[in-house]
Amino acid sequence: MLEPSLDLYGATFDKVDVVLSDLLVKSHARYALIVDRTGFVLMHQRAVWAPKPPSLDSLATLIASNYSANAAIAKLFGEDGFRETVQQGTDVGTYLEELGDKALLVTVFDASAPLGKVKLFTKKAVEQIRFLLEGVDEPRPTFEPDQAWSDDTGALLDGLFTERTHP
Amino acid sequence: MLEPSLDLYGATFDKVDVVLSDLLVKSHARYALIVDRTGFVLMHQRAVWAPKPPSLDSLATLIASNYSANAAIAKLFGEDGFRETVQQGTDVGTYLEELGDKALLVTVFDASAPLGKVKLFTKKAVEQIRFLLEGVDEPRPTFEPDQAWSDDTGALLDGLFTERTHP
Repeated sequence: MLEPSLDLYGATFDKVDVVLSDLLVKSHARYALIVDRTGFVLMHQRAVWAPKPPSLDSLATLIASNYSANAAIAKLFGEDGFRETVQQGTDVGTYLEELGDKALLVTVFDASAPLGKVKLFTKKAVEQIRFLLEGVDEPRPTFEPDQAWSDDTGALLDGLFTERTHP
Repeated sequence: MLEPSLDLYGATFDKVDVVLSDLLVKSHARYALIVDRTGFVLMHQRAVWAPKPPSLDSLATLIASNYSANAAIAKLFGEDGFRETVQQGTDVGTYLEELGDKALLVTVFDASAPLGKVKLFTKKAVEQIRFLLEGVDEPRPTFEPDQAWSDDTGALLDGLFTERTHP
């Protein structure tokens, strides 16, 4: 089964969330996403003023597959991959930077954000997130079904499978 | 059959060739290519000091297919495609700009070329090439087999199919 390759949870998740919000405020970008290289959205933030984003799952899948395709071009020149990619359309642009060897940080901006600022603050955010991920010694959350969970589930199943009593 | 979608020949070809050489000198980029969106190399230039490039046909095919894939991301944001794309690896980078709706101008540069210069002179080259292509009223070259061609081909075929006389 495909699974996200980077685990973000607990206090680290909250800290990275703050870094993304901060990036949006400082760069005036629309959205910031952390995308797994297999195509999952790991985290995302949207600026308060930004329009509703398109499907982030579609975006993450396209970004991850294009990243791999572009790595093929980089390999022609003896590079492992392209560290950063900027794409500019008439109004909307994307800036993508590698976040370790498993994920990508993607900033989506429009004409209201100067590209220089987007690059600068995305680079800073990448550094901060890398630092946060390196320091993770938090135990991975585990799921331990207790008596209350067991009772609740039993009751739910009984409700589903008990014969209906007609009035 | 797949055919290049842009015709470059005669005086226009020579003029565009000069624009590409000029781009390389001014920006200190390694290679400049005009790539058809279906994946053909239409023209290319290499700086005299640049190392031997990788297979340009492979490069053109990858660039054209990635351009289309990236257009899918642009469409999510209501754009037709990304006008320009910059990709930077550790040493080598590519800068890609749309050249009309059929071709792309790709500049490949390394750490010795400042990105600002690469962008500036690629943009100027795009403008010049667009202008040159708009003014094309040269007739498309045609192939008219004449008597000499007919005689030569006849002799060639005779040579190929005549029985070998053993000495």
